[in-house]
Amino acid sequence: KPNFDPRDHQHLRYNPLRDSWVLVSAHRMKRPWKGQVEKPSEDSVPRHDPNNPLCPASTRANGEVNPEYDSTFLFENDFPALQPDAPDPGSDHHPLFRTKAARGVCKVMCFHPWSDVTLPLMQPEEICKVIDKWAELIEELGPTYPWVQIFENKGAMMGCSNPHPHCQVWASSFLPNEPALAERCQRAYLQKHGEPMLLEYARMEAQAQERVVVENEHWLVVVPYWATWPFQTLLLPRRHILRLPDLTSQERNSLASIMKRLLTKYDNLFEVSFPYSMGWHGAPTGHYLKEDMNHWQLHAHYYPPLLRSATVRKFMVGYEMLAQEQRDLTPEQVSPPQSEKEDITSSS
Amino acid sequence: KPNFDPRDHQHLRYNPLRDSWVLVSAHRMKRPWKGQVEKPSEDSVPRHDPNNPLCPASTRANGEVNPEYDSTFLFENDFPALQPDAPDPGSDHHPLFRTKAARGVCKVMCFHPWSDVTLPLMQPEEICKVIDKWAELIEELGPTYPWVQIFENKGAMMGCSNPHPHCQVWASSFLPNEPALAERCQRAYLQKHGEPMLLEYARMEAQAQERVVVENEHWLVVVPYWATWPFQTLLLPRRHILRLPDLTSQERNSLASIMKRLLTKYDNLFEVSFPYSMGWHGAPTGHYLKEDMNHWQLHAHYYPPLLRSATVRKFMVGYEMLAQEQRDLTPEQVSPPQSEKEDITSSS
Ligand SMILES: O=P(O)(O)O[C@H]1O[C@H](CO)[C@@H](O)[C@H](O)[C@H]1O
Ligand SMILES: O=P(O)(O)O[C@H]1O[C@H](CO)[C@@H](O)[C@H](O)[C@H]1O
Repeated sequence: KPNFDPRDHQHLRYNPLRDSWVLVSAHRMKRPWKGQVEKPSEDSVPRHDPNNPLCPASTRANGEVNPEYDSTFLFENDFPALQPDAPDPGSDHHPLFRTKAARGVCKVMCFHPWSDVTLPLMQPEEICKVIDKWAELIEELGPTYPWVQIFENKGAMMGCSNPHPHCQVWASSFLPNEPALAERCQRAYLQKHGEPMLLEYARMEAQAQERVVVENEHWLVVVPYWATWPFQTLLLPRRHILRLPDLTSQERNSLASIMKRLLTKYDNLFEVSFPYSMGWHGAPTGHYLKEDMNHWQLHAHYYPPLLRSATVRKFMVGYEMLAQEQRDLTPEQVSPPQSEKEDITSSS
Repeated sequence: KPNFDPRDHQHLRYNPLRDSWVLVSAHRMKRPWKGQVEKPSEDSVPRHDPNNPLCPASTRANGEVNPEYDSTFLFENDFPALQPDAPDPGSDHHPLFRTKAARGVCKVMCFHPWSDVTLPLMQPEEICKVIDKWAELIEELGPTYPWVQIFENKGAMMGCSNPHPHCQVWASSFLPNEPALAERCQRAYLQKHGEPMLLEYARMEAQAQERVVVENEHWLVVVPYWATWPFQTLLLPRRHILRLPDLTSQERNSLASIMKRLLTKYDNLFEVSFPYSMGWHGAPTGHYLKEDMNHWQLHAHYYPPLLRSATVRKFMVGYEMLAQEQRDLTPEQVSPPQSEKEDITSSS
């Protein structure tokens, strides 16, 4: 019987942040693809389109006119999934028909006045402004809401309906499923192992250098051992940090730099503006602000849909929806070999 | 303050099969859609294409030639995600780098010799043959594997790369995440409430008639109270049934009939061959065959991606991937009003 080789033999890997497993079947990449091919993303976005509601000076759906902004620009989502004043459905329900109140706010934040740039094409100082704004949002909304989800859907493939560079912020009166899982798993890990899970993880990955994509003095980006999307990455600080506002200005500069490097690598991979959904997970806020949350470590997830090329995506469908997530190549196979990595001292 | 109205006010609903919540924001359907539009599905599939590896008498990737089959046809997947003999990765791993053995088989089953039909276009007797084969597969693979996932990816939008009507069967040496959740939740429900969860649920839905899509003497199809996909449905027997092989021949006929009615309704909704992923969840097999599994109730999930039309899908992206699943209209809004429902006695 042959020895186990993760590149040839399917196996399960454990995701300690979600307490679940992923099926890794590396040999599946060999199958031919005759399925759906995506439209390549438009490369001719006009820098300014007066009809685009995200552009400076445009009129939005609710009749408001955007300012002539020249950096970031934040406004309330005109079609929010969460509103601050939804009535309470009450709580006396049959166990099979349970419902709960959901309150919150949804905001949109433009990264830049130009529609034809993306984060990797922006200057580090411009990216820093985005990071500062993210931190401000957590500070502003955190006291009211236990969870403030900052996320970016990039590219038509990820349901993004506007090419203007922007992210969204949905703050909620409840802790959603995914952060609730991350909360429970990180809490249990610290209790059991005496160290915050993702602090230990970053240290081990930095040492192993098997799945590191980019790194610098303050940050590390890896294809996590338990990645489900083919090119999924996890962005981690090296120091123990609970939330975005805790970042020093040096760490913010360094974050802008590592984001630019990561996203440039993504764009270069298939020579296309790389689609993804990304988002920040920091320690919950609201009443959690007063609690000991040392089990948490700030991190960002990047979930890109592509698999083989700019137009062939990974479909998370039948087996994945009904049974378990499955990937077609190992996380190690998509991490650049050591030799291709930039010197960690050569970039801030 | 207005009274709570689920059609106007966002709220959370609890999914008792997954122990998680979905955010229901009905008012979101009002937003305009300028995002990605899918290609309408091809309507000119040739009945027989000698180059299609799923057709009778075609040569497959591994060189094997298909028989001139005239009903269903089962074969081993030529690019399996699971193989019966993968070596064991061992179990002595750091808690952040856990891996486990995964073994299994992957099969493909053609429903019909013609490429230009789909289940709703097939005769009830032809659908019955598919159901019999599904039951046989559980009987054959069940003793060896704790989980046998039967699933169908239909349509290019669901990653299906071949229009020939077919499903897949992936049997595994492990209980995957989703059935493991369903196992845990149903077990706890019976313990706490004294009745199998989905048996009670079907009875309550049949009585409420608020979310029923089609029903007959033996079966009920509802948009579950906790549905996440816009037109998601749950197919349930009225009688307590653990697994597909337990179905009587009358129940199989009646299942063929209700599947045909459900899938015809789906096709009529946007006048397109409706894409979806569907799959069966029966009680686990393998060593579970010898245990008391009365907390289980056989059921099938249908997960269709469409939202507004034949070409506009629901994107489960940023917020959904990072925080929580979210839907843009209530399950009640997509269930046909009582008056449109066929008389339950008029169809078998
Ligand atoms: O096996 P197929 O049809 O080639 O592939 C399809 O279904 C599989 C099981 O859900 C998925 O893993 C693939 O991403 C999808 O394209
Ligand atoms: O808010 P948008 O960009 O209109 O919409 C997009 O992101 C949302 C949050 O992830 C999703 O619910 C939508 O399905 C998606 O199309």
